[in-house]
Amino acid sequence: MKPNFCLRLRVFNLNCWDIPYVSKHRADRVKRLGDFLNVESFDLALLEEVWSEQDFQYLRQKLSLTYPAAHYFRSGIIGSGLCVFSKHPFQEIIQHVYTLNGYPYMIHHGDWFCGKAVGLLVLHLSGLVLNVYVTHLHAEYSRQKDIYLAHRVAQAWELAQFIHHTSKTADVVLLCGDLNMHPKDLGCCLLKEWTGLRDAYLETQDFKGSEDGCTMVPMNCYVSQQDLGPFPLGIRIDYVLYKAVSGFCINCKTLRTTTGHDPHNGTPLSDHEALMATLYVRHSPPQQDPSPVQGPPERSSLINVLREAWTELGLGIAQARWWATLAGYVIGLGLIFLALLCILAAGEGAREMAVMLWTPNVGLVLGAGAVYLFHMQEAKGLCRAQSELQHVLGRARETQDLCSEPQLAHSWQQEGRAE
Amino acid sequence: MKPNFCLRLRVFNLNCWDIPYVSKHRADRVKRLGDFLNVESFDLALLEEVWSEQDFQYLRQKLSLTYPAAHYFRSGIIGSGLCVFSKHPFQEIIQHVYTLNGYPYMIHHGDWFCGKAVGLLVLHLSGLVLNVYVTHLHAEYSRQKDIYLAHRVAQAWELAQFIHHTSKTADVVLLCGDLNMHPKDLGCCLLKEWTGLRDAYLETQDFKGSEDGCTMVPMNCYVSQQDLGPFPLGIRIDYVLYKAVSGFCINCKTLRTTTGHDPHNGTPLSDHEALMATLYVRHSPPQQDPSPVQGPPERSSLINVLREAWTELGLGIAQARWWATLAGYVIGLGLIFLALLCILAAGEGAREMAVMLWTPNVGLVLGAGAVYLFHMQEAKGLCRAQSELQHVLGRARETQDLCSEPQLAHSWQQEGRAE
Repeated sequence: MKPNFCLRLRVFNLNCWDIPYVSKHRADRVKRLGDFLNVESFDLALLEEVWSEQDFQYLRQKLSLTYPAAHYFRSGIIGSGLCVFSKHPFQEIIQHVYTLNGYPYMIHHGDWFCGKAVGLLVLHLSGLVLNVYVTHLHAEYSRQKDIYLAHRVAQAWELAQFIHHTSKTADVVLLCGDLNMHPKDLGCCLLKEWTGLRDAYLETQDFKGSEDGCTMVPMNCYVSQQDLGPFPLGIRIDYVLYKAVSGFCINCKTLRTTTGHDPHNGTPLSDHEALMATLYVRHSPPQQDPSPVQGPPERSSLINVLREAWTELGLGIAQARWWATLAGYVIGLGLIFLALLCILAAGEGAREMAVMLWTPNVGLVLGAGAVYLFHMQEAKGLCRAQSELQHVLGRARETQDLCSEPQLAHSWQQEGRAE
Repeated sequence: MKPNFCLRLRVFNLNCWDIPYVSKHRADRVKRLGDFLNVESFDLALLEEVWSEQDFQYLRQKLSLTYPAAHYFRSGIIGSGLCVFSKHPFQEIIQHVYTLNGYPYMIHHGDWFCGKAVGLLVLHLSGLVLNVYVTHLHAEYSRQKDIYLAHRVAQAWELAQFIHHTSKTADVVLLCGDLNMHPKDLGCCLLKEWTGLRDAYLETQDFKGSEDGCTMVPMNCYVSQQDLGPFPLGIRIDYVLYKAVSGFCINCKTLRTTTGHDPHNGTPLSDHEALMATLYVRHSPPQQDPSPVQGPPERSSLINVLREAWTELGLGIAQARWWATLAGYVIGLGLIFLALLCILAAGEGAREMAVMLWTPNVGLVLGAGAVYLFHMQEAKGLCRAQSELQHVLGRARETQDLCSEPQLAHSWQQEGRAE
């Protein structure tokens, strides 16, 4: 690789709102999206909420000349909705489905049925290893009473861990997607602190688009006031995040968003705004490397966010156990009631009524059993994330102590402390 | 690191058969296991089927001085059953829960409720990065009619992919666990071909233990003839697998198994036999490196096993779709029957019977709905593994062509072929 090596990457990201039977003007929007992507010829187009595999196949065919590589990430019952189109071939493909993703009985929200996931594509560009991640986290339906907060924090942690463990030999890491989190939300901070990813919107010197970089805006005719909740001017929940390691540096030359219309001022392509980033990857002499070793202030902000996430997951565990206990009581009462019905059925007086009530009561016990098992599994999933966080927190504290109190820390190290 | 660097690793692996209310002499076996591990003082003890978290906590306390680091991998409803005790501290911890793991309605087999997973622990030993994986795959209940074969192949693929993507900076990779596969089974070959892991039993010059290295043997008083199926002399389904990369070499100096008794010829510690390996890691001069670049014969055996796995997953997909279709028909018939019951209930003649049949029929429709959704999700999961396999197969073929027909391959490369 030459010392004046420079790689330009043009990246497109959009949550497509492509839900069969639900989304308005779906076919027309997908067609116009395909036309736009063909004209613009990005290096990478990362899409979320493509719930129709037929639409993916349509786009794949339409884009086959401009983007010869494409992948659709299948998971869950409906799918992950994630897909990628690329000018450059994929070297490797893998995906990770999030352990926790809402509740099956919240059918009207539907996230549980989707199998939300993170997809990874490894590309080799001019001798450089580029790890591209695309994801979509659980939606936030109410900011005031967000019953999915613990799940979203757990997803953000799994996402951060997946990136951390799979990008160790990558020169450049790129994450695009709909995180369903505002920039200062706990999960977003956790993700950025643990992976070191930087936000294109905050980094670029040349931004043009919606105010404050919002990706859901009131000007978009598909967005209702209800979608924006207490943020009538818009929310920023879709991101382009990146980092470079091992002797490279990356910066965002330009970032554009659509502004409630399609790029030609027509009907919007989706209820979300598209993000279009131009990134430059260059060689970075060792002394100019963005330091991967965190000093005390960074370490302390990591510790704070880890602690906060640990607490939030703890609340989620308590909630999950409460529901499992409630379901346990319902099962107990249902079984007692079934026994009473058996006694009644054996007698003469109320046999008919007892027989009538038998089946709904069996249904109740089975339903409560399913709820019990689900919340037990939820508690286990949250405990798992919490124990991983606790381990990282322990290690981060050790490192902080090593920096601030070298002697004490040295004696700790000698002890070979356990988890 | 010195040029004559040499690291000895003593590793213990056991499927503990620690199932509350089911396994015989559980408390006594766990106690004796703890005593044995304390006396032997291995570097790492990797355990499977520790389904009781209380037993893990008991062992943790008992082993705290000899093995200061310990971790229990939580997942699913019951748990993954995996845990690790180590003399050396863990630098990093992560786990991956397999997407597919049997059927919830096969309650008597129970695997679905367990959340089978692979756990990863990263250790730094004398400046060397060691990735330790522990896992337990879906059981094989019938060799003749193995309805879980596609799931186990998909799990083996997910395991291989997880190791492949998370071990890129590791110097040494170690995988221990109960794979529930014989050495020449498809999933086992797929795992070894894709990761390059080598089998301690086949590699060591010094093996002592049960005949043919079997880990379930008829001499074990907890093993029934039914467990061994068509292999009355025993089966080998538990493994110690390893590889070294980046300038190191690893070999298995000794491998021991128990032989149907505990190490002191008492009652066995489990229904599986324990594996005890002594591994040596040394510096390897570049020319002695086990070549990570596969030549044509290795490539061709990888292609064969990938193709076979692809076909097996295809059969699994067809089966999953068949069940989903059947469930779809049941839903349709159930809805028609519900409509008929409404008509009957509206009349006078059979109102009572119609009301009686209403609830069980609703139950039938809901049950069939759940089966439909489950098998749709199963098909998606298998499709996902199949598409990843297909991608690797495509790339392996390209590389093979590159080796055998440089000119043709070069022209292919120029075309920048898509997936």
